[in-house]
Amino acid sequence: MAGTTLGIIAGAGDLPRAVAESASAAGRDVFVLALRGSTEAWVSGFAHEWVALGETGKAFKALRDAKCGDVLLVGRVERPKFSEIRLDAKSVLLAPRVMTAALRGDDALLRALVGLFEGEGFRAVGVADAAPDLIAKEGPLGQISPSQGLLSDIALGFKVVLALGALDVGQAAIVCDGLTLSVEAAEGTDAMIARTLQLPEHIRGQHGKPRGVLVKAAKPIQDRKTDLPVVGVHTVRNVAAAGLAGIAVEAGATLIVDRKAVAAAADAAGLFVVGHRLAR
Amino acid sequence: MAGTTLGIIAGAGDLPRAVAESASAAGRDVFVLALRGSTEAWVSGFAHEWVALGETGKAFKALRDAKCGDVLLVGRVERPKFSEIRLDAKSVLLAPRVMTAALRGDDALLRALVGLFEGEGFRAVGVADAAPDLIAKEGPLGQISPSQGLLSDIALGFKVVLALGALDVGQAAIVCDGLTLSVEAAEGTDAMIARTLQLPEHIRGQHGKPRGVLVKAAKPIQDRKTDLPVVGVHTVRNVAAAGLAGIAVEAGATLIVDRKAVAAAADAAGLFVVGHRLAR
Repeated sequence: MAGTTLGIIAGAGDLPRAVAESASAAGRDVFVLALRGSTEAWVSGFAHEWVALGETGKAFKALRDAKCGDVLLVGRVERPKFSEIRLDAKSVLLAPRVMTAALRGDDALLRALVGLFEGEGFRAVGVADAAPDLIAKEGPLGQISPSQGLLSDIALGFKVVLALGALDVGQAAIVCDGLTLSVEAAEGTDAMIARTLQLPEHIRGQHGKPRGVLVKAAKPIQDRKTDLPVVGVHTVRNVAAAGLAGIAVEAGATLIVDRKAVAAAADAAGLFVVGHRLAR
Repeated sequence: MAGTTLGIIAGAGDLPRAVAESASAAGRDVFVLALRGSTEAWVSGFAHEWVALGETGKAFKALRDAKCGDVLLVGRVERPKFSEIRLDAKSVLLAPRVMTAALRGDDALLRALVGLFEGEGFRAVGVADAAPDLIAKEGPLGQISPSQGLLSDIALGFKVVLALGALDVGQAAIVCDGLTLSVEAAEGTDAMIARTLQLPEHIRGQHGKPRGVLVKAAKPIQDRKTDLPVVGVHTVRNVAAAGLAGIAVEAGATLIVDRKAVAAAADAAGLFVVGHRLAR
């Protein structure tokens, strides 16, 4: 198990691609374990193998054959109907542990999956290790900084997100003029932003008259190997459409996918994207 | 200001009517200050006067003329556009304090309004004082109790709601099989329940196969004179439509509007409505 290839177990979304590109650009050998129904077409540009959920034995073998030492779980995988998964022999052995963890929340599930790979001798790494240039830094990403008046909204937003994160609920909230408008749970950030538009107009910003901020921070209970919050170009577009003034993320613990494109989109939309270092 | 009448400053919803009926049935003289655009038609059954937001002088005079000693703010008032309110002389004096508080959240706003009435010599009372029979008690309200398996969802729900409440965010959450599905912020409980139906089917209950629980508890920072969480027949109907198994509320700090009708609706829908005493 002394392989030096980075094995990326890739779910949906832009993040797995960004990690593969970043690690590859840094000179690392990359192998992608592509999940049927989740991983997207970009995988054809990398050494890869397709597996279905439940094909655990095949997955471990593919990673070994590709000489993977480090493995990284990254990207969105819809919680499957357990009844629709066909478990191979290895999976049958491991299923009880995974299912028990799945019932305790997303974070517990991810920690259990990481544990499985470590039990097979792989080293589970986080995006911060595999693609450190994706990690949000302190300060504004584009040309625009938050106005002084928004700093208290940002501070309240971080308080709310950390309180929720400690209970494994979500990683994002929207605050406008001291009022918490929306809080993320199982619906995800995009749905949360979209529904903020249904709130009464006078408590939120509008297109052309932006107010309020989207705040994202990591769950305090995360081991940082798994599910860090993510901001991409689509986040900037959604935030602009919702009439918000910008995005504040936890520096050092949020991932920015396609940094240059995000900065350009924020500048074009007149939004700020800013990293804040949190005391933990 | 030694009046003995109960002055009810009535917003929208069923709760103000329920309070008026309860206090009246208990032998109390009741006067309703009806807010244009908020209070509903039931007010014609009680001694009342209509005022608009901003007619503070007229409001205080009406309450005095009706010999009100205790006053109670109850019911939903949409946050108005301040620009559309015409302030009378008294309101101009008081507006800065109210607007400052409004920016700090619902709870701060309500505390400020209570303070205004107390400053005029009225005694601000809570629903718990004026209509104690509306307060949720411990144990099941109808025929049905939560199954053993739901107790951990209920416990997690209370944890989430108390954490949110401490930050003046919301008073309700939905938990299903250890996963927090939805959390209430500015959208209110009904909208939160409705959107839970848009989550993937396998993480939530469905009509005919109920799972999960709506949990409501008071904000820890509330002074209990103002904005206690409320459950009514419409809550039971919404919860049934969302495929949830029941409702758990904080005993002693949640209001049940039309208790008998709520119990009957819960029994008819096969749901539990249960009160839990929380250690605070």
